[in-house]
Amino acid sequence: MKKLLLASTSTLFGETYLSYLTKNLEVFFKDVDTITFVPYARPGGISHDAYTAVVIKAFSKLNKKVVGLHSFSDPKVGIEKAEAIFTGGGNTFLLTKQLHEQDLIKVIREKVENGIPYMGASAGSNIAGPSMQTTNDMPIVYPPSFETLGLVNFNLNPHYMDPNPNGRHNGESREVRIKEFHQFNTTPVVGLREGDFIWAENGKLLLKGKGTARIFEVGKVPYESENIPF
Amino acid sequence: MKKLLLASTSTLFGETYLSYLTKNLEVFFKDVDTITFVPYARPGGISHDAYTAVVIKAFSKLNKKVVGLHSFSDPKVGIEKAEAIFTGGGNTFLLTKQLHEQDLIKVIREKVENGIPYMGASAGSNIAGPSMQTTNDMPIVYPPSFETLGLVNFNLNPHYMDPNPNGRHNGESREVRIKEFHQFNTTPVVGLREGDFIWAENGKLLLKGKGTARIFEVGKVPYESENIPF
Repeated sequence: MKKLLLASTSTLFGETYLSYLTKNLEVFFKDVDTITFVPYARPGGISHDAYTAVVIKAFSKLNKKVVGLHSFSDPKVGIEKAEAIFTGGGNTFLLTKQLHEQDLIKVIREKVENGIPYMGASAGSNIAGPSMQTTNDMPIVYPPSFETLGLVNFNLNPHYMDPNPNGRHNGESREVRIKEFHQFNTTPVVGLREGDFIWAENGKLLLKGKGTARIFEVGKVPYESENIPF
Repeated sequence: MKKLLLASTSTLFGETYLSYLTKNLEVFFKDVDTITFVPYARPGGISHDAYTAVVIKAFSKLNKKVVGLHSFSDPKVGIEKAEAIFTGGGNTFLLTKQLHEQDLIKVIREKVENGIPYMGASAGSNIAGPSMQTTNDMPIVYPPSFETLGLVNFNLNPHYMDPNPNGRHNGESREVRIKEFHQFNTTPVVGLREGDFIWAENGKLLLKGKGTARIFEVGKVPYESENIPF
């Protein structure tokens, strides 16, 4: 039975890292002493050590220990020993490339299917879907595949933004991009706005946070939903 | 000697397709009767035929004929016969995938190096660089490689937008994304704002349009430039 917390973002504007999630993290990780952190997405190119230090600090307030997956000489052993996994945000191409190159996709999937809690933020949530193909990130590296963990049967679009009705810019809106995705793929997509997150437990998927999610399915007009209909 | 017109966008807000470029297109294509149009990027999932019809209409005002590359049973023959090439915008992953699968990268590169005019808009400009790795698009399909035409020795970021100083959204700015690109790649990047375009002729690269471009080089603070310094 999978236990998931998939957040659109790690940080709300003007707040500190993960602070808006504090109460939920206390509950989500209540049976866990040490969280294994996957720092591979490296936001802004930050080092694995520096990124892990940010996460150690955030979780110290909850009296949780954090160990960076990069600190294991064999990262597969790091995952096999994990009590819980948190994958941070950053660049999804970089994250996915490294997970494939270290042959970690299947190992993480099995651990989470066997019940250890998995938390993702932004890119870390993106990879919970069957593919990373609804990321907003730039393809700064070439992953051997776009396949990701498939912990849920839909793709996520984190940091979802509505089209700007007053916009005078001609770049594609998020909605147009997801429509293009559905020309070639049938996986449903959940557009998850900042501040919102998905909580899965006991076979149920809940949408939590501030509002509704934008749901995209092939052949349907996109719609708002107060829950995750998949 | 390459002759290039690389536009950030095909269409300015509130205007018709390519209209802001009309006078420049008259000059750029003055010795050309028929333009071979590459419709593979399919913006919003539009069909090759429908996309080509839009381009036929736009160029009919300049008394130019347009033929869609998809109408050739062998697209290599279509490129070899071309007097000029225009690659339209849309999804850069889709465009790059099809160019590789049809083995067209080298053929187009050689034709342009031998002097036929090449015009790109948005995704069509993106592929003029050595790689498509500074695209803004969503990875809706998996190309066999991110390598592109390499007609210029820098990458482009079309529809370039400055960071919003009043933004309360936590998704990465374009500048942060390009900084992440430069953690793993040394190719310089030109952030080309809407309305601006690059004109290459007789070995010279000119920046034309409304303003300056944003230049990104490894180890340098990003800067504004009135010309293309590469």
